Amino acid sequence: MSPIKNDLFLRACRRERTERTPIWMMRQAGRYLPEYREVRKNSDFITMCKTPELAAEVTVQPVDLIGVDAAILFSDILVIPMAMGMDLQMIESKGPVFPKPIRNEADAKELKKVDVQKDLKYVLDAIEVTKKALDNRVPLIGFSGAPWTLLTYMVEGKGSKNFAEVKKLIYNNPKLAHELLDQISDVVIDYLNAKIEAGCNAVQIFDTWGGILSQSEFFEFSHHYITKIIAGLKRTDEPVIVFAKGVFYKLKRVISCGCDVLGLDWTMDIGRVRTRVGDRVALQGNLDPSVLYADKKIIAEKALSVMQSYGEGTGHIFNLGHGILPDVPPENAKFLVDFIKEASYDLHR
Amino acid sequence: MSPIKNDLFLRACRRERTERTPIWMMRQAGRYLPEYREVRKNSDFITMCKTPELAAEVTVQPVDLIGVDAAILFSDILVIPMAMGMDLQMIESKGPVFPKPIRNEADAKELKKVDVQKDLKYVLDAIEVTKKALDNRVPLIGFSGAPWTLLTYMVEGKGSKNFAEVKKLIYNNPKLAHELLDQISDVVIDYLNAKIEAGCNAVQIFDTWGGILSQSEFFEFSHHYITKIIAGLKRTDEPVIVFAKGVFYKLKRVISCGCDVLGLDWTMDIGRVRTRVGDRVALQGNLDPSVLYADKKIIAEKALSVMQSYGEGTGHIFNLGHGILPDVPPENAKFLVDFIKEASYDLHR
Repeated sequence: MSPIKNDLFLRACRRERTERTPIWMMRQAGRYLPEYREVRKNSDFITMCKTPELAAEVTVQPVDLIGVDAAILFSDILVIPMAMGMDLQMIESKGPVFPKPIRNEADAKELKKVDVQKDLKYVLDAIEVTKKALDNRVPLIGFSGAPWTLLTYMVEGKGSKNFAEVKKLIYNNPKLAHELLDQISDVVIDYLNAKIEAGCNAVQIFDTWGGILSQSEFFEFSHHYITKIIAGLKRTDEPVIVFAKGVFYKLKRVISCGCDVLGLDWTMDIGRVRTRVGDRVALQGNLDPSVLYADKKIIAEKALSVMQSYGEGTGHIFNLGHGILPDVPPENAKFLVDFIKEASYDLHR
Repeated sequence: MSPIKNDLFLRACRRERTERTPIWMMRQAGRYLPEYREVRKNSDFITMCKTPELAAEVTVQPVDLIGVDAAILFSDILVIPMAMGMDLQMIESKGPVFPKPIRNEADAKELKKVDVQKDLKYVLDAIEVTKKALDNRVPLIGFSGAPWTLLTYMVEGKGSKNFAEVKKLIYNNPKLAHELLDQISDVVIDYLNAKIEAGCNAVQIFDTWGGILSQSEFFEFSHHYITKIIAGLKRTDEPVIVFAKGVFYKLKRVISCGCDVLGLDWTMDIGRVRTRVGDRVALQGNLDPSVLYADKKIIAEKALSVMQSYGEGTGHIFNLGHGILPDVPPENAKFLVDFIKEASYDLHR
């Protein structure tokens, strides 16, 4: 395989020297781009995930249009529950819904064993098409939901405010919760290994709902399985990023999962986190995504403040503290990327 | 005024010796109680807030039915924007909506100066009726939203996922944001002073949306005004509780607002927080509200774990880490209260 031309992102993940701070944005292949909406107009979201050419097309868009330093394969964390046999319906205004959520042993027995090479072949095919289109310009990131976050969706069945069903499960039937989490973890391991084998240069594990748990429950029901997954990965030098939104505590224990990069949401003080764990992992983040609603002067000011908080030297991958919002002006996203590229040189002398 | 018979809550707020840990629950006058739903059946939510007899009735219910150690006056944080002239509509399934939100200087000019004794007389009357009904059995807590949380509702106009409008305001027009926050703070000062004068034995400031801000923005747009409010209170010995959901950082600076009690959501480690600031303030919290969905054995286990994390001695007011959920079984709430009353004696020898 020929080398990646712009490998700033990978070097920063490994805390190797870089000339400037690399930047990409969570959900960068998304609705804020008119070019994305153009593709989406003719295909529903799941069809886009399942059609390698479409997934590849929107994956590459932000590289071409916004100039990010890494691509992240367009997909959805819910492809795993789908591969496990759950019927996913996209209901306009309600978002993704599983009409038959998993609530008890009988429901759990209905879940299928997953053969990633077969059941998720469309993802691996999308990686192949994307790699060709990227032509080694920038690295390609593959991702998966963390088992806890996947379980939350599988048990709730739809968006939730209080997460009553999944909480009932962990309180009243922790045995089943752990069995399901273990089963999901095995699928995630196969899935991420297949992604790496297919050409992904890094992987990110999203734990969107880690922060709804108390601290001890997070370590028991989420962190334990993230650790298991990372231990199960077969990789050469592909970095692993863990982003657990709302998990602000016991960061040394958090990074003991074996991640190379810790993703931070915008409520974290990235400078303080660096002081605590920056000698062991790189940090990714953490501008409030809503800053992209602001005037350019403010975007520059707030972005600079994140960079200065991190401070000099490598190990910082600039990103938003959560996914880019669907209604921000694309020119603001482009402005942010250009600004980071220019303004970060001073911090890497 | 004759003394409060059960003043455990007040003593714990002041970190004076208590025989056991006091307990009350945020939103304890609420929908989980069939007796509350009975009252609510005949009156909409705003009418309940505005009718002193109804507000008093549901305020006293959890004292009689659940046995909590403090009552909190049934009301809504949005009575302040209403008093400022904003039209509030309760739309079923959407919650409270301000059809004319505040977005610019012209909108802000429409806001009225508030005369608490006149415009919010119904709250003060409700306190009078409630005090009579309580007959000094337990203390009565009065509350207000924090200016930041009130501003969020006033600017968004309705429930929001990304808080785009209020974020645009603080980024693009911080001057107007600060003017509004200052104006709201003045109303909150008058409002809480009137509540104390009318007989409230403690006040709680709820900053439900403090946690959507980055750390520096929290101190600039929220904490600054909470501090101003507490400095403006005329009180004898009424404790002030500050509950800022999602604010997990710089706790010494957080409590420099002058609060007597810091409320904690369930993602906090109450024992660690005590180590850091427990010599200066009492702590309130912090059981995950969804634990009340669980079997009684688990409720006892998780509640004990919160108490043990806090440890021995006074200064802990047991509470949930957020409001009680509308669909928990009332018998579970009663079980929790009974359990805390019994199990906490050992920690207060």
